[in-house]
Amino acid sequence: MDSGMLQKNTPVPLYYQLKQHLLARMKAGELKAGDRLPTENELCRQLEISRPTVRQALGELVQEGYLVRRKGKGTFVCPAPVTGRFFQRLQSFHEEMEQKGLHPATRVLRCEKLDSRYEIAAELGLPAGDALLHIKRLRLADGRPLVVVDTYLPYTAFGWLMQENLERESLYDLLEGKGTRVDRVTRIMEAVNVSAEDARLLQMGKDKAVCLVKSLASAGGVPVEYSIARYRGDQNKFAVELLR
Amino acid sequence: MDSGMLQKNTPVPLYYQLKQHLLARMKAGELKAGDRLPTENELCRQLEISRPTVRQALGELVQEGYLVRRKGKGTFVCPAPVTGRFFQRLQSFHEEMEQKGLHPATRVLRCEKLDSRYEIAAELGLPAGDALLHIKRLRLADGRPLVVVDTYLPYTAFGWLMQENLERESLYDLLEGKGTRVDRVTRIMEAVNVSAEDARLLQMGKDKAVCLVKSLASAGGVPVEYSIARYRGDQNKFAVELLR
Repeated sequence: MDSGMLQKNTPVPLYYQLKQHLLARMKAGELKAGDRLPTENELCRQLEISRPTVRQALGELVQEGYLVRRKGKGTFVCPAPVTGRFFQRLQSFHEEMEQKGLHPATRVLRCEKLDSRYEIAAELGLPAGDALLHIKRLRLADGRPLVVVDTYLPYTAFGWLMQENLERESLYDLLEGKGTRVDRVTRIMEAVNVSAEDARLLQMGKDKAVCLVKSLASAGGVPVEYSIARYRGDQNKFAVELLR
Repeated sequence: MDSGMLQKNTPVPLYYQLKQHLLARMKAGELKAGDRLPTENELCRQLEISRPTVRQALGELVQEGYLVRRKGKGTFVCPAPVTGRFFQRLQSFHEEMEQKGLHPATRVLRCEKLDSRYEIAAELGLPAGDALLHIKRLRLADGRPLVVVDTYLPYTAFGWLMQENLERESLYDLLEGKGTRVDRVTRIMEAVNVSAEDARLLQMGKDKAVCLVKSLASAGGVPVEYSIARYRGDQNKFAVELLR
């Protein structure tokens, strides 16, 4: 970095210019997750600006989650949060991550038959005592845990999924392969504090915020899947565009 | 309540039947926010079921936020969370609350000219030094604080809003009355922990989760409004329906 990138005769304060410059370099991929920034002293010298100016720019970027300070090691670039469109588009996790250039991965934590779960059966419109298939998955992007999902399907119709490789194949693709094409999903989202178990799985601090999303998927009017997902608050953003 | 409402010969446990029955009565408006429930002893006697059964049903409803226990006073029905469709529909807060049969209210906490806020000007596509109109509003439904919103508009074009009654009139209606019809909004949502100031305004506990929603509204391709809203996590749900 050199001092030419900052304009000293504009109403835009230098700290803000530095901040925007760093953000632009992150966006362009010139500064990548894990990269170490020059020290405050080096930045002051390179850019010919004061220490408080550098400190304010870096401080705001740390607070906003773009940078992280590691004691005795320096200041590093954080992975960018993933902005999802899944409130607007019906797309698989894999498809969405791949479109963003991220490497998706899925860990199946549990795949089991539940003899009955009344409240889930009710969501799926099943008799209360019907057996369910329960799949618990942790989903990652570039190795970072993003979301943990509990998925439930009627066992009678979909128990065969237990023989499939759900770490490799998309659930919706597998369903479609056997003639069940999910064509409608309703989602309800809220912000909650993370549970102790999810905090461990998602590698989050105690009481941090997560997006809780409950989804009901149906095919031709018949409910096929109910899921409860918890997205790391600081790693996921959801975007929509509305017209009238 | 009488014992006839519970079916003792089904696989559905009694605690779950009682819970669903109470939820159905809340939904139907027979049990309203603020109503006191019979005591555990009274419920055991009326329904001819055991104390642990009653305790489990009430305990889950308390944990899920439908009921609240007040020491020495009893168990009371909580106001239901508001499920908004604003991720799917462009609608004013007032319209949406009224459709739900809730009484909306708005408190204007601040309405001021800001000489410059670089980062907001950038979102609105304005030169960094341009003045902005800042409106800070707390919005309530039936007297409960739901959301606090900071709204920014270009001051040159929209400074006249300072003379309007923003507690009575919809911002979008006022804009439309002067020829600016908002026809596109993009929103980005994430879950974060509440700030100390917002916790006070929204009457929330420390570190509780809120939905942070940043919106950019435009009219005929020109950005007119940028807003940052914080929705109480336990009082707001957002629903969408997706088709393919």
